Amino acid sequence: MRTLTPSLLTREAFAPFGNVIEVHPDNTQLAINYGRTTRHHAVAEVATSGPDDRAILSIFRSEPVSLPFQLQVMERHPRGSQAFMPLSGAPYLVVVAPAGDFDAAGLRAFLASGSQGVNYHAGTWHHYSLAMERTSDFLVADRDGPGNNCDEINLEPHVMLALGEH
Amino acid sequence: MRTLTPSLLTREAFAPFGNVIEVHPDNTQLAINYGRTTRHHAVAEVATSGPDDRAILSIFRSEPVSLPFQLQVMERHPRGSQAFMPLSGAPYLVVVAPAGDFDAAGLRAFLASGSQGVNYHAGTWHHYSLAMERTSDFLVADRDGPGNNCDEINLEPHVMLALGEH
Repeated sequence: MRTLTPSLLTREAFAPFGNVIEVHPDNTQLAINYGRTTRHHAVAEVATSGPDDRAILSIFRSEPVSLPFQLQVMERHPRGSQAFMPLSGAPYLVVVAPAGDFDAAGLRAFLASGSQGVNYHAGTWHHYSLAMERTSDFLVADRDGPGNNCDEINLEPHVMLALGEH
Repeated sequence: MRTLTPSLLTREAFAPFGNVIEVHPDNTQLAINYGRTTRHHAVAEVATSGPDDRAILSIFRSEPVSLPFQLQVMERHPRGSQAFMPLSGAPYLVVVAPAGDFDAAGLRAFLASGSQGVNYHAGTWHHYSLAMERTSDFLVADRDGPGNNCDEINLEPHVMLALGEH
């Protein structure tokens, strides 16, 4: 079985798939609140696609996975973006593939720190949240509205996600 | 000078001003990701008001205040909601007043835990982020778009915010 190993999450490597939500020197930074706050402005957008859509906030509470972990399914949201911001300080794993017809050759895995969020662009294929270490909460910003917004495919053959080759 | 003391943040007490963003048994809960995740669904909405508006995510990095703290200004965003989710685990203070013509008699202060976010409804008067204890990051979900979206008033006379009467 093919093994996928994660790279450290960076905005450059993740750019084809979406945004990294983090404090970063390259962000647009605004001094507000009489100098007491720095606003890292618009690091991501909650994209919607129809007049009856709305942007919502949810909390996902996820049980951690054990590695190596067998990847069996991938999903995408054609009508909107989906952002995950970790609230529990634990690292987590992100698995993506480019938008368009699913191609397993394009699978990429990233190790995100507990202070890095991700925002999947509409249509980006991704695995569901892969918490590590402990039960982890994520603030999720995504699109709600009419019509199907989740396509899922079975990954055949399965792919093993592991921190190192084995 | 008048002193305002905070109450513990609860969804019931905060309902006139907005939403509390937290894991809570009364949330709509959905089992997703093959049972690995509980989705606390749509605990808040990022409200916008115009066709050219968008919902964005930013990170606010705020220096903590020392108590007692003199409240001098209040603000409101007429064209959209504004949500704050703490990322640093520290408690923080929230000061609000009802939407409409500002009335200092309606001022309320809340002590939020490090796992509680708030979403101010459009028009709710609020003080800017009042981090406590240490430099604190917040994920902020609000509205971006054309036109003025921030009214600010000076609080005259000033009001003292303190954890206890003194």
